[in-house]
Amino acid sequence: MPYTYEYPHPAVTVDVLVFTFQAGELKLLLIQRGRPPAEGMWAIPGGFVNIDESLKRAAWRELNEETGVHAAYLRQLGAFGHPDRDPRERIITVAYLALLPVDRLHIQAGSDAMDARLFGLQKLPELAFDHAKILRRAHERLRQNFADASTALHLLPETFTMSQLRRVHEQVLGETLDKRNFSKKMQTAGLVAPTGEKQKVGAHRPAALYRKA
Amino acid sequence: MPYTYEYPHPAVTVDVLVFTFQAGELKLLLIQRGRPPAEGMWAIPGGFVNIDESLKRAAWRELNEETGVHAAYLRQLGAFGHPDRDPRERIITVAYLALLPVDRLHIQAGSDAMDARLFGLQKLPELAFDHAKILRRAHERLRQNFADASTALHLLPETFTMSQLRRVHEQVLGETLDKRNFSKKMQTAGLVAPTGEKQKVGAHRPAALYRKA
Repeated sequence: MPYTYEYPHPAVTVDVLVFTFQAGELKLLLIQRGRPPAEGMWAIPGGFVNIDESLKRAAWRELNEETGVHAAYLRQLGAFGHPDRDPRERIITVAYLALLPVDRLHIQAGSDAMDARLFGLQKLPELAFDHAKILRRAHERLRQNFADASTALHLLPETFTMSQLRRVHEQVLGETLDKRNFSKKMQTAGLVAPTGEKQKVGAHRPAALYRKA
Repeated sequence: MPYTYEYPHPAVTVDVLVFTFQAGELKLLLIQRGRPPAEGMWAIPGGFVNIDESLKRAAWRELNEETGVHAAYLRQLGAFGHPDRDPRERIITVAYLALLPVDRLHIQAGSDAMDARLFGLQKLPELAFDHAKILRRAHERLRQNFADASTALHLLPETFTMSQLRRVHEQVLGETLDKRNFSKKMQTAGLVAPTGEKQKVGAHRPAALYRKA
């Protein structure tokens, strides 16, 4: 059944930038497109907004379809609407930022994707459409949102070491932070509390585990 | 000529929140709607995005039509897309924040508006559609953007007194700031420079005029 309008209408999609922290690296979830346009290229997962669903609900639906996750830090990044950004028709997309601990992620390639995978931000493939631009904007916003230091906790599992927490901040901010000052700042801010447990990784000295305070 | 699509498509508008500073008050530009829906109600000015123009270009066009202004601080606030936000059809709007000095503003009611006027944020009329929600979000974002103290300068004319600059900050942040500390902070930050001129208003002592450094 066709839908008819007096004026031309754009299509509207949501794209969800799913960030997580894995093996000491900030990572982004990408899907490999299974159909044209840009077939075979890597892209930020997303899809069309249903005519009767809110933008946020569409973002939740996409997030759930790609990751199996029902709850997360999910914030709107903004709308991207250059007239030529998609060859099919005028498509305006509303991008969302999602932050998740990697142990909650169950990545599943949607029906129109060949593959879905986490990429370190330093090792990204070429991205389809204007997704490199959207990612740059997402990274800037993430940096701004890290002004609230508790934002980082959304990327980590329930318990974590202080160096994991510091590494998240370092990767988002793109700078090296002083070990001792960082630890002190997080603890005096009342952001994290020691669990009393320790974690032993490889040949390193066991490291104290923390949780959100 | 009708336009036909296989799936239902939303309409997309831009709405521009024009803030300025007048007579010691932070003010917002509103238009009074000249046709249904919400005829006679006050609303944030905006309009439909042309199918071949970018979102930002549409925002500039609307800003120019309402204020005569071609250059301003213009930033995207985000998309608002609840399915029931407009009774006509599914309309997703992308809101923009514009900051302007009042002496550059030439307010003109567009063709479908009965009136256009500046309102102090404490004296707003009831707003049409979901515009009260959009305004709340705009105010929050404005507060965040004031973390960069130079943002305030976009609201002021070329020269201004220190108490005008302080008042802008107070109104956006919703708190009273210490006169002397504020002045010192602005000057040591290298944000403003004295012009050497003074302004005499009413019976008050002449106040030094500053400009952007």
